[in-house]
Amino acid sequence: VPAYRTAEIIAVGSELLTPYRLDTNSLFLTERLNEVGITVRAKVVVGDDHNALADAIRAALGRADIVITTGGLGPTADDLTREVAADVLGCPLEEDPQILQAIKVRFERRGLPMPAMNRRQAMVPARATPLANPHGTAPGLLMESEGHLLVLLPGPPRELQPMFGSHVMPRLASATEGRCLARRVVKVTGRSESQVDEIAHPIYSGLGDSDVVVSTTILAAPGQIELHLSAAGTVRSRLDVVLDEGVARLADALGPFVFSVDGRSLEQVVGDALRDRSWHVAVAESCTGGLLLTRLTDVPGSSAWVTGGVVAYANSVKTGELGVPLSLIEAHGAVSEPVAEAMAEGVRRLLGAEAGVGITGIAGPEGGTRDKPVGTVVIAVAAGRAAVRTHSFLGNRDVVRRFATTAALDMLRRALA
Amino acid sequence: VPAYRTAEIIAVGSELLTPYRLDTNSLFLTERLNEVGITVRAKVVVGDDHNALADAIRAALGRADIVITTGGLGPTADDLTREVAADVLGCPLEEDPQILQAIKVRFERRGLPMPAMNRRQAMVPARATPLANPHGTAPGLLMESEGHLLVLLPGPPRELQPMFGSHVMPRLASATEGRCLARRVVKVTGRSESQVDEIAHPIYSGLGDSDVVVSTTILAAPGQIELHLSAAGTVRSRLDVVLDEGVARLADALGPFVFSVDGRSLEQVVGDALRDRSWHVAVAESCTGGLLLTRLTDVPGSSAWVTGGVVAYANSVKTGELGVPLSLIEAHGAVSEPVAEAMAEGVRRLLGAEAGVGITGIAGPEGGTRDKPVGTVVIAVAAGRAAVRTHSFLGNRDVVRRFATTAALDMLRRALA
Repeated sequence: VPAYRTAEIIAVGSELLTPYRLDTNSLFLTERLNEVGITVRAKVVVGDDHNALADAIRAALGRADIVITTGGLGPTADDLTREVAADVLGCPLEEDPQILQAIKVRFERRGLPMPAMNRRQAMVPARATPLANPHGTAPGLLMESEGHLLVLLPGPPRELQPMFGSHVMPRLASATEGRCLARRVVKVTGRSESQVDEIAHPIYSGLGDSDVVVSTTILAAPGQIELHLSAAGTVRSRLDVVLDEGVARLADALGPFVFSVDGRSLEQVVGDALRDRSWHVAVAESCTGGLLLTRLTDVPGSSAWVTGGVVAYANSVKTGELGVPLSLIEAHGAVSEPVAEAMAEGVRRLLGAEAGVGITGIAGPEGGTRDKPVGTVVIAVAAGRAAVRTHSFLGNRDVVRRFATTAALDMLRRALA
Repeated sequence: VPAYRTAEIIAVGSELLTPYRLDTNSLFLTERLNEVGITVRAKVVVGDDHNALADAIRAALGRADIVITTGGLGPTADDLTREVAADVLGCPLEEDPQILQAIKVRFERRGLPMPAMNRRQAMVPARATPLANPHGTAPGLLMESEGHLLVLLPGPPRELQPMFGSHVMPRLASATEGRCLARRVVKVTGRSESQVDEIAHPIYSGLGDSDVVVSTTILAAPGQIELHLSAAGTVRSRLDVVLDEGVARLADALGPFVFSVDGRSLEQVVGDALRDRSWHVAVAESCTGGLLLTRLTDVPGSSAWVTGGVVAYANSVKTGELGVPLSLIEAHGAVSEPVAEAMAEGVRRLLGAEAGVGITGIAGPEGGTRDKPVGTVVIAVAAGRAAVRTHSFLGNRDVVRRFATTAALDMLRRALA
């Protein structure tokens, strides 16, 4: 069994060369390949073009141990991957009677005759091993060529993912000479990418040893930073020890800004904290227009800790439903700490929840003033340790709304801690 | 001036070969290239590796008229694009005093000395034309090689996009021999991809003539289908005539399911319809948890037509705030047409809006029953032509919430029409 170390991924389809579609299968495939210590050295996208695809497969087989194509296994004349692979490997296409039978059965189950063009999907390169596809008509195909592996997978993720897991991963896992890879993710909020990097960097360099190689990545999203640690080696338990130590050191250095070391999202962490107390939260939102409620209720089962909320886009809703005194708005403006506090307290009382959150601000692009420019957002939490804070976020409307709801979730997390 | 017809895009950066990051610059570049009739024939992603990048640039220059690289122009030792391009083109790197000066000035403005490593960014291949970067330190570079164009762009979109628009597009536009490309998008909701395709397909074939080649793409998102028409030719006005006729025929055949032929989103179409009437909308949401409010308030200026809303996750909020009679919930269940109607009417009255929307349903994964399985969502509109409808959506929690809010926006659009 050869040891596979490198892979290349070729996404096939002219639609992937338009301004509207991206290949995302390669993210899934990269994650699974990395798990067994295989590195992706390049990715290519080509259209439904015989020569372009043949060149891409040939070049990739010359560079990588494993070449995976996605797409182009359908029944139409545009679907060329089977015949191009047969050409490149110099073996003829033959009709596979078992595959043909499986396709016919698939149509029969739906009470339909098999369209003539689906017969193409049973034509496979003579040396290929077919990979069953319970979720579609196109089987995958696996071929070996001078110690390299060529794997042809269908494009739809719901067909590709189970096929790769069931039929390709076991083969790869057995060919990695016992190498394995482990990962951890440390999630941080309330600090910028460079602040986190400055703290994390000196810790990275002390991780790992001659047996365990640790690599690190930092990823930033609005209001959230993720530190990804991965370790490659041959003894799983050693990798876990090294990574757990790294996570512990990072969590210690970054302190309360770390909200998750077990993969949970900020929404889940907040939800779990509420559930642990048997508390419910109610939310009053102005500039974020329901996004905080949307994020809280994205979590399955959130009806156990979310009562609901009020989106107070008009000031009349703030004074009417939420009971914010008009005098408060007149004295301090709608975007002010007293108003945010009154909104949090008002919605908590109105909906009978233990915790309340109030958000008021200017998401832009209009509405900013000299004193309160676009990006000014005031967030109040009424519950546990009550808190209020005025934030200044930079970015467009979407980014400000995203930052603001992340900050609100984090204030709620800390109030519950 | 050579005529450019084909391009390849090479994204450079090891982070683009992890499971966490996708190259998205290529979508922007493809859109702009298509505008001047240039087709993208392949896309490649390579890591920060000298040989891999050199191979990729060399191979692409052998196939395409234009090769564009993105990324790898930063100041660190990982940033190799400049020196690899110089190697491939066989011309030495030289320090450009003007670029060096511009980088120094950029740091001085922030009151900082230029770090020594930024000097690397002033090293450019001798034959290259620098492209000014007002948004960062790395200039772009443009080189010609045997009639082919090699363009090196920085990775960050906020640097790449203005640079490409100001410095590369004018050069390409002047080299397309008068070819041009025009586009239209027809947006449809309330019909499946195959239903839309069946109606649209016969219309496509009648479009265009020997001077104007029309190509079509169909794209599906939860609850929404887009038909993209593009036409290539030499006379702009002819393209517009052909496409406008195609759009008119499609709009005629698809009838009221078409909501936009001018690029506007469904949210914008609804917002504009409300503004035209000087109406406001109020929303009561249960299973969608604020997502409809979030989508309505995504549109800048939406405070002119959104009053706000109530997220009634708990039944007590439905009966308390929204005034839904408990007897109605007991008789029909919380997920029922009478309750949705009472929510729409209740929130409209409560917040003093002209239009009200009520959504109640089961987004899953829990909470489904035999009679009302996961994906059952009831939507009511109180305004104009009042309406209520029970939908059955297929998919996970996210998809159901997305479908449901799209259906609600569409019902509101039709009630206002």
